[in-house]
Amino acid sequence: MKKYVYSFGNGTADGDGTMKDVLGGKGAGLAEMSRAGVPVPPGFTISTEVCNIFFEANRTVPQEIEDEVAQKLAKLEKSIGKKLGDAADPLLLSVRSGAKFSMPGMMNTILNLGLNDETTEGLVAKTGNPRFAYDCYRRFIQMFGEVALGIDMEKFDEAFDARKHKRKLKLDTDLDADDLKAIIVEYKKIVKKETKKDFPQDVLEQLKLARNAVFNSWWNPKAAYYRKMEKIPDNIGTAANVQAMVFGNMGDTCCTGVGFTRDPGSGEKVFYGEFLVNAQGEDVVAGIRTPQPISELKQWNEGVYNQLVEITTMLEKHYKDMQDFEFTVQENTLYMLQTRNGKRTGPAAVRVAVEMHEEGLIDEKTAVLRVAPNQLDQLLHPVFNPASLKKLVKLTTGIDASPGASVGRAAFSADDAVIMAAKSPVILVRKETTPDDIHGMDVAKGILTAIGGKSSHAAVVARGMGRPCVVGAGAIHISERSKTATVTVAGKTVTVKEGDWISINGTTGDVYLGQAETQDPDPHSPVFAKFMKMADVYRGKFGVRANADIPRDAKVARAFGAEGIGLCRTEHMFFAEDRLPHVQAMILARDEKTRRKALAKLLPMQRKDFAGLFEAMDGFPVVIRTLDPPLHEFLPKREELMVDIAVLPYADIKKKKELVAKYGRFGAEVKNLKTLLPDLLRRVEELHEFNPMLGHRGCRLGITYPEITEMQARAIFEAVVQVAKKGKKVIPEVMIPLIGGVKELENQKKIVVQVATEVLEKAGMSDHHYMVGTMIEIPRAAITAGEVAQEAEFFSFGTNDLTQTTMGLSRDDYTKFSKEYENLKIFANDPFAVIDQDGVGQLVKWAVENGRKTRPTLEVGICGEHGGEPNSVQFCYRAGMDYVSCSPYRVPIARLAAAQAAISGDKSEASRTA
Amino acid sequence: MKKYVYSFGNGTADGDGTMKDVLGGKGAGLAEMSRAGVPVPPGFTISTEVCNIFFEANRTVPQEIEDEVAQKLAKLEKSIGKKLGDAADPLLLSVRSGAKFSMPGMMNTILNLGLNDETTEGLVAKTGNPRFAYDCYRRFIQMFGEVALGIDMEKFDEAFDARKHKRKLKLDTDLDADDLKAIIVEYKKIVKKETKKDFPQDVLEQLKLARNAVFNSWWNPKAAYYRKMEKIPDNIGTAANVQAMVFGNMGDTCCTGVGFTRDPGSGEKVFYGEFLVNAQGEDVVAGIRTPQPISELKQWNEGVYNQLVEITTMLEKHYKDMQDFEFTVQENTLYMLQTRNGKRTGPAAVRVAVEMHEEGLIDEKTAVLRVAPNQLDQLLHPVFNPASLKKLVKLTTGIDASPGASVGRAAFSADDAVIMAAKSPVILVRKETTPDDIHGMDVAKGILTAIGGKSSHAAVVARGMGRPCVVGAGAIHISERSKTATVTVAGKTVTVKEGDWISINGTTGDVYLGQAETQDPDPHSPVFAKFMKMADVYRGKFGVRANADIPRDAKVARAFGAEGIGLCRTEHMFFAEDRLPHVQAMILARDEKTRRKALAKLLPMQRKDFAGLFEAMDGFPVVIRTLDPPLHEFLPKREELMVDIAVLPYADIKKKKELVAKYGRFGAEVKNLKTLLPDLLRRVEELHEFNPMLGHRGCRLGITYPEITEMQARAIFEAVVQVAKKGKKVIPEVMIPLIGGVKELENQKKIVVQVATEVLEKAGMSDHHYMVGTMIEIPRAAITAGEVAQEAEFFSFGTNDLTQTTMGLSRDDYTKFSKEYENLKIFANDPFAVIDQDGVGQLVKWAVENGRKTRPTLEVGICGEHGGEPNSVQFCYRAGMDYVSCSPYRVPIARLAAAQAAISGDKSEASRTA
Repeated sequence: MKKYVYSFGNGTADGDGTMKDVLGGKGAGLAEMSRAGVPVPPGFTISTEVCNIFFEANRTVPQEIEDEVAQKLAKLEKSIGKKLGDAADPLLLSVRSGAKFSMPGMMNTILNLGLNDETTEGLVAKTGNPRFAYDCYRRFIQMFGEVALGIDMEKFDEAFDARKHKRKLKLDTDLDADDLKAIIVEYKKIVKKETKKDFPQDVLEQLKLARNAVFNSWWNPKAAYYRKMEKIPDNIGTAANVQAMVFGNMGDTCCTGVGFTRDPGSGEKVFYGEFLVNAQGEDVVAGIRTPQPISELKQWNEGVYNQLVEITTMLEKHYKDMQDFEFTVQENTLYMLQTRNGKRTGPAAVRVAVEMHEEGLIDEKTAVLRVAPNQLDQLLHPVFNPASLKKLVKLTTGIDASPGASVGRAAFSADDAVIMAAKSPVILVRKETTPDDIHGMDVAKGILTAIGGKSSHAAVVARGMGRPCVVGAGAIHISERSKTATVTVAGKTVTVKEGDWISINGTTGDVYLGQAETQDPDPHSPVFAKFMKMADVYRGKFGVRANADIPRDAKVARAFGAEGIGLCRTEHMFFAEDRLPHVQAMILARDEKTRRKALAKLLPMQRKDFAGLFEAMDGFPVVIRTLDPPLHEFLPKREELMVDIAVLPYADIKKKKELVAKYGRFGAEVKNLKTLLPDLLRRVEELHEFNPMLGHRGCRLGITYPEITEMQARAIFEAVVQVAKKGKKVIPEVMIPLIGGVKELENQKKIVVQVATEVLEKAGMSDHHYMVGTMIEIPRAAITAGEVAQEAEFFSFGTNDLTQTTMGLSRDDYTKFSKEYENLKIFANDPFAVIDQDGVGQLVKWAVENGRKTRPTLEVGICGEHGGEPNSVQFCYRAGMDYVSCSPYRVPIARLAAAQAAISGDKSEASRTA
Repeated sequence: MKKYVYSFGNGTADGDGTMKDVLGGKGAGLAEMSRAGVPVPPGFTISTEVCNIFFEANRTVPQEIEDEVAQKLAKLEKSIGKKLGDAADPLLLSVRSGAKFSMPGMMNTILNLGLNDETTEGLVAKTGNPRFAYDCYRRFIQMFGEVALGIDMEKFDEAFDARKHKRKLKLDTDLDADDLKAIIVEYKKIVKKETKKDFPQDVLEQLKLARNAVFNSWWNPKAAYYRKMEKIPDNIGTAANVQAMVFGNMGDTCCTGVGFTRDPGSGEKVFYGEFLVNAQGEDVVAGIRTPQPISELKQWNEGVYNQLVEITTMLEKHYKDMQDFEFTVQENTLYMLQTRNGKRTGPAAVRVAVEMHEEGLIDEKTAVLRVAPNQLDQLLHPVFNPASLKKLVKLTTGIDASPGASVGRAAFSADDAVIMAAKSPVILVRKETTPDDIHGMDVAKGILTAIGGKSSHAAVVARGMGRPCVVGAGAIHISERSKTATVTVAGKTVTVKEGDWISINGTTGDVYLGQAETQDPDPHSPVFAKFMKMADVYRGKFGVRANADIPRDAKVARAFGAEGIGLCRTEHMFFAEDRLPHVQAMILARDEKTRRKALAKLLPMQRKDFAGLFEAMDGFPVVIRTLDPPLHEFLPKREELMVDIAVLPYADIKKKKELVAKYGRFGAEVKNLKTLLPDLLRRVEELHEFNPMLGHRGCRLGITYPEITEMQARAIFEAVVQVAKKGKKVIPEVMIPLIGGVKELENQKKIVVQVATEVLEKAGMSDHHYMVGTMIEIPRAAITAGEVAQEAEFFSFGTNDLTQTTMGLSRDDYTKFSKEYENLKIFANDPFAVIDQDGVGQLVKWAVENGRKTRPTLEVGICGEHGGEPNSVQFCYRAGMDYVSCSPYRVPIARLAAAQAAISGDKSEASRTA
């Protein structure tokens, strides 16, 4: 016969700690502790399977299982020597939820079950403590009424408060036994009124209803939401743990507490926790009374303290991980109620892993696997001092786009930010950012936008710069004209004006009005270095590079352990103040000669940029991508021009001067606006695209304007010569973007090789090694990868664009319906955050395989945003890539994810190039 | 030893007609004729391989081959009894190019080779015709000078004209022998001056230089361009045919002519051609003298005429195809110079194929293969009467976007077109069209745009409507404001004003000012019907459906033989005048309730549309796609709104009234413009997308607004009930667009099935058969086709979007750099015209295969524009699809292409569903 109910207690258990699927986390923990001889109150666990049966059977439990529950109850009664409903000496029970994965506070619990009018009198007699007994009954009716009978908690609170008010009492504890008896009468009236039935006196009925209430709470809105958030499946159900009550609130020989075997904040090996004398578990959590630190438990009861230390130390050794435990002391006897692996901060996770390994508790592989890669983020970014936040007004929560906390004065334009940043830290606040805002983002301590998702311009650039950033804070209305941000907080309108202090948390998305305190991280702590060293051993030759466009970022990347640059976006250099005019002149050029003239001005600047990168990456490869974005991105916005032209006939001199300032770099003067603006618009119109993502960009630019590729190749190889002559080791890899097939690469490669040959020969460096390769970011390039590899010496997967094209989904536009898609679970994850393995991933695997068939030495990496996301990194490892590349601040995360992938083991290691 | 030179003549030949690769078309024809006993002047062919060797060897010919040429020359001399360079009786030769594929007039020819100062005198003596001999020599120097020595032709012309002028003569034929002798002297001076050498008197050197000149002409700019245009490979080279001269210009017993065995215009079986007495071949082509019709040859020389008829009839039987031949009669002796399969018009191709089959000359398969599918286009569209064009000014040539000729008055807006069309035919002239222009396109006889390619909105819609259309006529500057089109013709500015007559040819892209005459086609001629019937037999069960959105198009499609509708775009119905307001109300709705109210108004209209389609397609399936385009397409343009808002503060009452008219359907009044326009803009901004192609459209709309899908499903199935109750057979297939995976289809299918079940049950038609399927138009859908087929009962490949996403290429933006891509041969074809087999095609094959693995009965078709393009149709057949769907006017083309694919044979027939 199938088993649905599992007993535990008295040093034995039907189940064990491995059975989380069946018993839930709490049930498995109780079984395991019981087996290990830890004193736990005995009881039984009704399995998660029963929960699923319950929902399938229209919220009923089959008789067969009811019978099994009755059996296990009988066994429990026997072991403890008390009977449920015994009027003389009643057994009292707790009924608690417990799913496979921890869902703290999301589901229901009922305590003191088994009390009714009769048994309560028994409890009075047995304990000689009427106040305790009536308080237990009062609490039970209230909890059961709310949880199992669905009565509004406020109704009970009103009755309770009415009594307090009538008796002019201040504290709950001031109520005496008579008060509580009177309250019980009121409570029972409430139950009768709300349910049209008397409060159930039948204790077996109580048990059934409580169990069902626990199951029902699986579909609490908050539980369902939590599961969605944490990606916990809906179909695993919760177990119901029925356990003999122990009381921490029977007097001063009783207490209850929670603790950790190490400090979950820092990871330090100290006994950590707190307890409350004469209290039940909820009281600790509720925070009504201030608990004592656990160290004081020793003074209170040294025997209990020593026993607790002994047990929890044993449990930590048993589970080989830091434990989070709950205990109760009833009349000087210690009971363990729960133990589980404790949640911890990133710094704590690293320290615990390293120290447990050093203590010989876990092996090295386990230590490396013990830290979730994303937890490292907390070691790399400033955090808010939580205490300082209490004084601030929380404005809203947007999307956490780039981690870290920052504080500054609100600036509403990039130009303002530059001016203000000279005097004070600045947060750049924009509806959305564009490449025109780069200089403002550069000087800002953080960026806040109202529009856009995790892949918006602001998010991508901010992550690249390592700037904290919150995007898509849609509740805030930003007026860039009036330089204000308005938001409604608790019904009141709050306006943030230019210069006001605000604090943003890019790790959580929270936005505050006011100046919070920040704590700086220490990414160079010895324990972190030790941990990463351990991880790197397992990562082996699977490389981690960084996406970096400027020497400063390259240096940060090296400090974080990047083994090269996987993507340098040359166009990011184009937006700099001193370059934009030449870039624009190049674009506005009507013929090749004029274009070449403008390009000649850019050449030395690009060369300097590249030289800086090569120097910073001495001995490591640097992948430089040729120009990628559509040219219109460098010009004024079409619709702005249209509006400016439309109002020009009505413009006064002030407005005209504004326009002259705005279009100054195009030679605007008051007298020529009438011809200049329409001319400019004509060119902008020519370059205007319906779908810029699929338009004239990437290698398509280099093919139509070969002189651009030529200039960039020249800048690259002249920089190679310059830096190599200084004695540095320069390993350039020139990458052609957005090819759809081998012919485009062939075309561009020819130009690059021609320039490289000429420049290197002239410098007497003909045999200097370099590679020419390509982004794989269009499905067709992946499909024809076998042919592409005839020309490509390396592939780098641009999974941002590859995701957009493979899914036919613009990342900027996806945010408009991403909420619905997430709610309907159409995508398993945001495909721009976690690589879509079933679709995009198939193309990646196909391309790696076929590319290597053609060219076994093909170097393969990824430079899309996914390169810094742990699941995606593991996918890349399994797909046989040689490296991942990500933003500098995600390098440690990628290193750890790669190490974990290597430890998890796979067969593609062999296919990586040597 | 390898053979490089092939003799022919006197009833034998080294080669034969199958050796076009080696001998070129002309050489193979001469060999074949010679073998068949046809009198051809003897000679030899220097193979195409020599041409390739020539270019590889730096434009020289190896001695080994020179020796072989000398041998074959000796053989020729022996057979004819004359020697090259013999001062008494010289052999004269022609040297002609001839590649595998006909490249008429693109390469060089030299006649009369072998003449020098000495042999010319011999020719004088031998023929007793000094004028003839000197004229031959004069012509030879001129031709050789230009072709082999690279001297500017004008220099010779000047000398020739100078003599005529000096002697005050009008016609060339007025010059006598002395004149010609004097001209020869001048010509030789020119040669000396230009080449610093005397005109070569060595006849063997003449031959070498002439042969090399023929080879060199392979890379003439015009020949290279022609090859690119006709997709002839560059590496196949040309042969050089050296042949004894025969003279049609030795007097009145001589003539030269060209002819066809049937009328190449109509296909009628008549002896067709023309000849000129006392003339050389060039004179017929040059058109200086008017040739006589070939029927008059009988009077001129009945023996020759009968022999010619006999020979060409034999050749037609021999080649089993209509022959295009050239002949010369020298002193009453007939020589055949060339024969080849004749080019013909579409109607002729059909008639010749049908009649040759009826005559027993070719079998049915050959007859079906004999007509190029695209040739059928000429049977389906009006054509211009060529004579009437001579009177018109040709303005420009744009892109041939939708075939057929049409004539009308220029209208510069859709609204103007509607008004003008009431009185006169109209051509709609626009910079580019948008969905807002549909009503204007509908009433116009033709459409002309300045911007856009073959896949632009104008092109796609015009083809759908069967309207002639020329797009991308970039030379024309269109001002929609001033209602003029301006173009520079031969240095002069021509302005077309509203109401001016223009004539456009959508088959060629030509645009004329003025009113041409058109001839209507007869697509229902008996011979065409016979031909299509024959083709359909071979096509078998491979279906051809039409893309049709309205009942009128559906009827046209049926008339052209469509076996169902493969794509009904429901949104095309949304743009109708009476619907747009409801569509817009639906879009502007802020909540579901308001949206449902607007949808309720659309329901009866959609139902009526669908009912019309079902009636027209009685017994055939109708695939209806749910709403696809992004919603902002139905709203005013963002930038227009921005401009209107910007100028509003300065607007006078007239301007305000204009705005009220423009935004009337949104409730605009003079007093509310200030609030209405910004409100409208806000919604437009909300819907604005960076890449609409990859945005919130297709099933993504139906998923976020399920009530839209619900309304459309209701309209479909209520129409099913309505039409079925009339006794018609209704086969509805509901198609969900733009899915990326099975979950999206699942979501939408559920809604459709729910509505269908309800509507059909209510009508007592629960068992009425219908299908729900999906477009495959996103790479991810193709990649995961195996899963998608779990839900999809049919696939229809949307290869327009699949091409855009797979290649990362927007079809609207591609036109900006398509010229460069074509010149560089980066794409084999325009990927939006001919399916990209290596990229997109791979995904299609993968999806068909994996879809059928999951669901063997899966119906598979294509509804992208490629469905009407012959190469792509053949690909679809080979990929195992069940049908193609194309615009109604391309249905016959697709039927023929499919039949030809079936005849060409393949193995995937078995995989088609039954």
